[in-house]
Amino acid sequence: MYFKHVYEDGLAQASYVVGCQATGSAIVIDPRRDIQVYLEIADSEGFSIDYITETHIHADFLSGTRELAAATGAKVLLSGEGGADWQYDFDHESLTDGDSFTVGNLRFDVIHTPGHTPEHICFVLTDLPSSEEPVMLFTGDFLFVGDVGRPDLLEEAAGVKGAREVGAHQMYESVHKLDYLPDFVQVWPGHGAGSACGKALGAVPSTTLGYERRVNWAYRTTDETEFVAELLDGQPEPPTYFGTMKIWNREGPKVLQSLPRPNRLDPSSLKRMVDRGAQVVDARDKFAYAGGHLPGSYNIPDSSDFSTWAGWLLDFERDVVLIAPDHRVDDLVARLVRIGCDRVVGYLPDIERLSDTGIELEIVRQRTVADVHDDIASGAVSVLDVRSASEYGDGHIEDALNIHAGRLPDHLAEIPRDREVVVHCETGFRSSIASSVLLAHGVRNVSNMTGGYAAWQDAGYETVAEGEPVG
Amino acid sequence: MYFKHVYEDGLAQASYVVGCQATGSAIVIDPRRDIQVYLEIADSEGFSIDYITETHIHADFLSGTRELAAATGAKVLLSGEGGADWQYDFDHESLTDGDSFTVGNLRFDVIHTPGHTPEHICFVLTDLPSSEEPVMLFTGDFLFVGDVGRPDLLEEAAGVKGAREVGAHQMYESVHKLDYLPDFVQVWPGHGAGSACGKALGAVPSTTLGYERRVNWAYRTTDETEFVAELLDGQPEPPTYFGTMKIWNREGPKVLQSLPRPNRLDPSSLKRMVDRGAQVVDARDKFAYAGGHLPGSYNIPDSSDFSTWAGWLLDFERDVVLIAPDHRVDDLVARLVRIGCDRVVGYLPDIERLSDTGIELEIVRQRTVADVHDDIASGAVSVLDVRSASEYGDGHIEDALNIHAGRLPDHLAEIPRDREVVVHCETGFRSSIASSVLLAHGVRNVSNMTGGYAAWQDAGYETVAEGEPVG
Amino acid sequence: MYFKHVYEDGLAQASYVVGCQATGSAIVIDPRRDIQVYLEIADSEGFSIDYITETHIHADFLSGTRELAAATGAKVLLSGEGGADWQYDFDHESLTDGDSFTVGNLRFDVIHTPGHTPEHICFVLTDLPSSEEPVMLFTGDFLFVGDVGRPDLLEEAAGVKGAREVGAHQMYESVHKLDYLPDFVQVWPGHGAGSACGKALGAVPSTTLGYERRVNWAYRTTDETEFVAELLDGQPEPPTYFGTMKIWNREGPKVLQSLPRPNRLDPSSLKRMVDRGAQVVDARDKFAYAGGHLPGSYNIPDSSDFSTWAGWLLDFERDVVLIAPDHRVDDLVARLVRIGCDRVVGYLPDIERLSDTGIELEIVRQRTVADVHDDIASGAVSVLDVRSASEYGDGHIEDALNIHAGRLPDHLAEIPRDREVVVHCETGFRSSIASSVLLAHGVRNVSNMTGGYAAWQDAGYETVAEGEPVG
Amino acid sequence: MYFKHVYEDGLAQASYVVGCQATGSAIVIDPRRDIQVYLEIADSEGFSIDYITETHIHADFLSGTRELAAATGAKVLLSGEGGADWQYDFDHESLTDGDSFTVGNLRFDVIHTPGHTPEHICFVLTDLPSSEEPVMLFTGDFLFVGDVGRPDLLEEAAGVKGAREVGAHQMYESVHKLDYLPDFVQVWPGHGAGSACGKALGAVPSTTLGYERRVNWAYRTTDETEFVAELLDGQPEPPTYFGTMKIWNREGPKVLQSLPRPNRLDPSSLKRMVDRGAQVVDARDKFAYAGGHLPGSYNIPDSSDFSTWAGWLLDFERDVVLIAPDHRVDDLVARLVRIGCDRVVGYLPDIERLSDTGIELEIVRQRTVADVHDDIASGAVSVLDVRSASEYGDGHIEDALNIHAGRLPDHLAEIPRDREVVVHCETGFRSSIASSVLLAHGVRNVSNMTGGYAAWQDAGYETVAEGEPVG
Repeated sequence: MYFKHVYEDGLAQASYVVGCQATGSAIVIDPRRDIQVYLEIADSEGFSIDYITETHIHADFLSGTRELAAATGAKVLLSGEGGADWQYDFDHESLTDGDSFTVGNLRFDVIHTPGHTPEHICFVLTDLPSSEEPVMLFTGDFLFVGDVGRPDLLEEAAGVKGAREVGAHQMYESVHKLDYLPDFVQVWPGHGAGSACGKALGAVPSTTLGYERRVNWAYRTTDETEFVAELLDGQPEPPTYFGTMKIWNREGPKVLQSLPRPNRLDPSSLKRMVDRGAQVVDARDKFAYAGGHLPGSYNIPDSSDFSTWAGWLLDFERDVVLIAPDHRVDDLVARLVRIGCDRVVGYLPDIERLSDTGIELEIVRQRTVADVHDDIASGAVSVLDVRSASEYGDGHIEDALNIHAGRLPDHLAEIPRDREVVVHCETGFRSSIASSVLLAHGVRNVSNMTGGYAAWQDAGYETVAEGEPVG
Repeated sequence: MYFKHVYEDGLAQASYVVGCQATGSAIVIDPRRDIQVYLEIADSEGFSIDYITETHIHADFLSGTRELAAATGAKVLLSGEGGADWQYDFDHESLTDGDSFTVGNLRFDVIHTPGHTPEHICFVLTDLPSSEEPVMLFTGDFLFVGDVGRPDLLEEAAGVKGAREVGAHQMYESVHKLDYLPDFVQVWPGHGAGSACGKALGAVPSTTLGYERRVNWAYRTTDETEFVAELLDGQPEPPTYFGTMKIWNREGPKVLQSLPRPNRLDPSSLKRMVDRGAQVVDARDKFAYAGGHLPGSYNIPDSSDFSTWAGWLLDFERDVVLIAPDHRVDDLVARLVRIGCDRVVGYLPDIERLSDTGIELEIVRQRTVADVHDDIASGAVSVLDVRSASEYGDGHIEDALNIHAGRLPDHLAEIPRDREVVVHCETGFRSSIASSVLLAHGVRNVSNMTGGYAAWQDAGYETVAEGEPVG
Repeated sequence: MYFKHVYEDGLAQASYVVGCQATGSAIVIDPRRDIQVYLEIADSEGFSIDYITETHIHADFLSGTRELAAATGAKVLLSGEGGADWQYDFDHESLTDGDSFTVGNLRFDVIHTPGHTPEHICFVLTDLPSSEEPVMLFTGDFLFVGDVGRPDLLEEAAGVKGAREVGAHQMYESVHKLDYLPDFVQVWPGHGAGSACGKALGAVPSTTLGYERRVNWAYRTTDETEFVAELLDGQPEPPTYFGTMKIWNREGPKVLQSLPRPNRLDPSSLKRMVDRGAQVVDARDKFAYAGGHLPGSYNIPDSSDFSTWAGWLLDFERDVVLIAPDHRVDDLVARLVRIGCDRVVGYLPDIERLSDTGIELEIVRQRTVADVHDDIASGAVSVLDVRSASEYGDGHIEDALNIHAGRLPDHLAEIPRDREVVVHCETGFRSSIASSVLLAHGVRNVSNMTGGYAAWQDAGYETVAEGEPVG
Repeated sequence: MYFKHVYEDGLAQASYVVGCQATGSAIVIDPRRDIQVYLEIADSEGFSIDYITETHIHADFLSGTRELAAATGAKVLLSGEGGADWQYDFDHESLTDGDSFTVGNLRFDVIHTPGHTPEHICFVLTDLPSSEEPVMLFTGDFLFVGDVGRPDLLEEAAGVKGAREVGAHQMYESVHKLDYLPDFVQVWPGHGAGSACGKALGAVPSTTLGYERRVNWAYRTTDETEFVAELLDGQPEPPTYFGTMKIWNREGPKVLQSLPRPNRLDPSSLKRMVDRGAQVVDARDKFAYAGGHLPGSYNIPDSSDFSTWAGWLLDFERDVVLIAPDHRVDDLVARLVRIGCDRVVGYLPDIERLSDTGIELEIVRQRTVADVHDDIASGAVSVLDVRSASEYGDGHIEDALNIHAGRLPDHLAEIPRDREVVVHCETGFRSSIASSVLLAHGVRNVSNMTGGYAAWQDAGYETVAEGEPVG
């Protein structure tokens, strides 16, 4: 048996290639949209990808199932569970609870595990003929290392009223549906730490059923009501693009032939594109953005969170222009394509010559925590905390307004205009993004509190823990 | 004044960026089709490309004038000389003999210099206001370092009967049309050594009028008849794609948005593509091809001659699959695009796993010169010399059949089938290409004479100098 | 807890980075010698590498413990078990059975598990304070996925007489020493499929104790005598460099400041280096090598087995010159450095111009299985099977001489000189290496049986299963 | 004849490879220290580098003559002119005025042309047997496109009193020493635009003698006194490292085996290195540096001027640490090695995690021209103009102090400490470097005038043209 864990750190997303060496046949579970990685594994290991499956309709990335099927001719096996609203709307064979299928000698048993989503399924893998014992469980967004999937996405992101509680109760049942499996089964989930599909995912790629039964809160909480309350509490804000992904993944995402290859622009071409409506994503780091940037551009730094912030902030129906060095463009384009943001039409390697076109560059004013502390006292500034509601809940600067950085475009009205607004997050990454959003939407009286809440605490200034986020 | 010689070694083709630093305006002369190089120069030097021109309708590469105009909005200035048949068939402003135009402070004077083609023009550049003296002459395919352009392409490649002599006489006149210019003017031609647009181009990028007047045979031959005879003698075989280029460049080549990005294939996908009609170009070197290759593939080694051999052998209307390592694919695709071969649909990095698909690999049998010498004597083999007619004329193995490697597909009927055919060129590069063509067309009794004619001579075997090529 | 499985496919070798996020402290287990990978993980994840440990004195690669300690100042923790002969001979702190140490909040318990080597230890990891349950076991070369470590290396590679049986009995005890641990503990071994440190390692990176107890032959064989017999049977031939590694790793390998950066050579420089005694490694694939190569060069194709074949064939005390394209040189150098082969002094990107220096290139003659079958019958050829003894034992061509490809330099006397020797392996990879070794040692009457034993079987020719290998 | 102009844009330095195709022999003129480029040309074109020569003892880069001789075994031909003080102090053959040597069929005639330096020679190339006419002249730092070499470097950089005038008169004679050569000879100089070895070099790679005779001021100024005055007027400030280069190039620079390969550091290793005395070069652009940087680091942006600014500011005897992304490190190291700055011991790809080590990052305060204009009026700020003396002379802000950015370390005492110092250059590149120098030397009351003198002029504020630079 061949097994490969393919991890995409931008979305903390795991897909799997499992192959039977005796027959040369392989399956891919939960493929991402830039499928080259699977083709290369298959080629170098000598497999033919004959099957593709998914654990569920994903909300955080665009599935590569259709690209991969087009490239390989593989059979597509997808969940038929969850009722009429959750049926995939493109060519496939249905899998339902209790089904089995084989990939060469390997047997996959299907278990329906709703909770995260109604149609969610898991796969128990048995490495026949070596042994009749189950070796691995592919749990998708149902069971993670140290956590279970969140049941509230449908309501939060797709607007299905009341779905939260229904999902939470289903999750309780699904957790115990696995009780028949032995402790030693390996658990390989669909996400790692950092994914917005759960709240406390561990930074370890895999676990075992036995370990989770002893350590995972979901197994240790035996009272269903308590379980439901705990599960629904403190889930992170789902990025705005999640709703779109759900729909596209169910209907069948557009099939890409190959990754787009944007042209290098000169400053005047960039200006023309902006004039025609392109969004500018400045992927330089917060220091460079603060030191000078194109007015109107969003700062989404080239980091593992690039896809997620792009998902929060970009309009996938409009053209996108990147500011990023040549050697990073291909990877950033791939990160955008993974969430269905396909319209990258050009890039500028740096901003050195932007001012030649008559554009006046903008900076992000920096304030030290000491400055801010003094000015709060004098009423000269308002503080805007762009962290998540749960971070805010754990402690914040008194009277700070809390709006999640990704939600700012919908909450501009709440930003005070009559005095300077000092933006901060935990350490400065998100406040740079947030400052760029405010500046781009014409909020000029903005400054960034260097070092963020961490620096504020290090300086020993007072904090409070009550209060409610605005957005 | 800013000046940049942009040289593409595959086609030995020169284009030029000339800019006026005082105004930031620049012109590109004879742009190639992958225009990124010009955009990057303009960006890094701070120029705006406001003008594009061509010296003539090119036969050896697809012009990038339309791509560049689309990307920059530059004004397109093209020859209006040569009569109705030689008018560009897309948007432009016409230039005729005696015209002048300026790029910032720089003045370009237009001289009509027919001979290579009827519409051919040159540009005299004066770097105003520094001096009223002419500084450079852009001569396109009219005047080269040590040679002048060939006047026979229209007849050879485009089938215009009688054009050879007409062109040769025009060339004589054009050569002397420059007599009014001073010796010290720099001459920057459209091609360097290795181009098929002339026969004796020097491996030096530029020259001066004064030096050419003293050294170039075209200036030293003062009798017109002698000039015409000399000019028409011994020109290299023009690749078969030249005729197509002429037509496309006049009509206006298809504008590419960006270079194609072929997908990496696995062996079975490659097989599917071949079954659907794709041509396979094996870009590995002659050693690797000889050691094992896919039956039916052409060996066009990754070298500076790649474009030219692709032009000889490929059908631009059919899909192309490359066998080349990942890091070379982009460049090879660019080399194909430069001649209008846009349909590269995939690539295979190596042939390691090809035999897994059931394909039986083929080798190229090698024969030493000693073997061949013996077997010629015994009548066991025929010798096929795939060098050019002029090389053959200078000396060859007795009774060797001479067919230029690029013309083999049209001369398969002349290849003997009743005995082994030993292929050779000068050193082995072209005979590998030729062997691949023969094998791909079902001529099985082929072997390669290792080391080629050079090795034959080194061994001291007899040669002859008379005889006529077949193809 | 942070966990990273760092896998080096050339030696199928796993090392691990485990970090405590609460304290920022991390440990590296079994580091390889090119340590950049650990520094980058630590940097990007925000850890400080404070500890380094090893499971045992490695035989198959040179440890990077000293490089990593020099670069980070980390504390070095090494086994103090195994008696006086097996004590590390450089600065470290000793670990013995029953010891515990902590990395931030994480606890590592040391278990002495001799068998593969006398000093071998394992680590049980507990992720405190999350849980008191053990989460992972780092088993080094003691327990693999589906197998246990081989106990015969000391005798085979280091010449310690009688060590095989002693080790096998110790292994039996060590296997059961883990009985106290629960089924659900994850097992992360020191090697994956393809390593010469065991015979049947699975192509899955990890397993669980429970699964191994049910499936691994070592747990299912409860009779000690039977266990010992099974364990010692059919182990692969250990490469010749294993003995050296043992000694160097115990004494403390030379610390590299950075990877060597060999110069690109031209053909005449290469010739000079060869004249001064350099070994030439031709890393092109078998097709290219067969099609033409430098006489005297070894063909060690650029593949995941590169390090192992270099370990079999190269003299680490002599200079090495590579034939490999520019973009592959850095990785190949790293692969050599991993086994202590540090003297790569230059490389040639291809062999195109080698013959310009007067060198006459050599080819590898190819024979089809049909040819060989006929010529065996007529007595014209001898067959040399360069596969492993166990493959030979499973079936071979009648009367074929069996010498493992890596052992050929020590068995040249056994090669017949009075007739053609046809070399084969399973599919052609190893027979290309073997042919290169024979040619380099002056055995000229060599040809390669294309397609190998697999093709012989496909053709339906007879095979036999008895007989003994020669070397 | 083969000819290749090898241009290094960082030092605007030209070297040349000239080869005789008939014999395969080539010469390199004025090689730079990273010699790989010459070896690759020789290899790909099939030449053997048999000769190396220099036009003079260079001041602006470290010669690669010794590296290249070591790698190729080429004969080294160097000037024997200029008297005892200017004799090369390592193995070579001497060339004096009137000497000739051949490279294959090519003849090089030596002309002694002192002025820039006493030992300076030029080479007249004749392409025998094609023609007896001279084809090219290699003029080194004697004759440039549009200018002649500066004669004041010895005095400015090497402290030879009175050398300026002597050199200027010699230059006048040398200019006319070429009168015997025809107009049509091509002139290929040692530098292009941007070099500090002259003051008005054109951005065109080559010229002709005839054109220079008509356009170059040095030919048009026929009065010797006027010539000398003009030549000595307005030469740019020579970087501080020029003196060292002269000495090292005469004595024979240290021969490098290969380019250093610095290790990637983590923040804490960088801190350790700084504590041990390493200089930190932050090669990010001015925006990133302004937005946040390591206190004490110099900002030398990754640009074509990188070598020159490194030459101004770095101590070649101390370790250097770079802040630059991975893919730029090799090139930046090469740029440093070209001027003999060999001790790059590590690099940090970005500063994201620097603050984790407890280091507090610093920003560069930005002031708009409007702010500065107001504050000058109120006496709140001093203006520091870090442009060259000649730029300052052409116009500056009233009362601005002028110290060339590269000379700041020697003029710190002149910087006012009692009020804010606003730094500016023309557009902001040099003022970022200058601000970094001031901050690194403890001058804290520094801000940068965004947009520089260009923005000041665009805003229509008053300027003056009299006044003297301080440093």
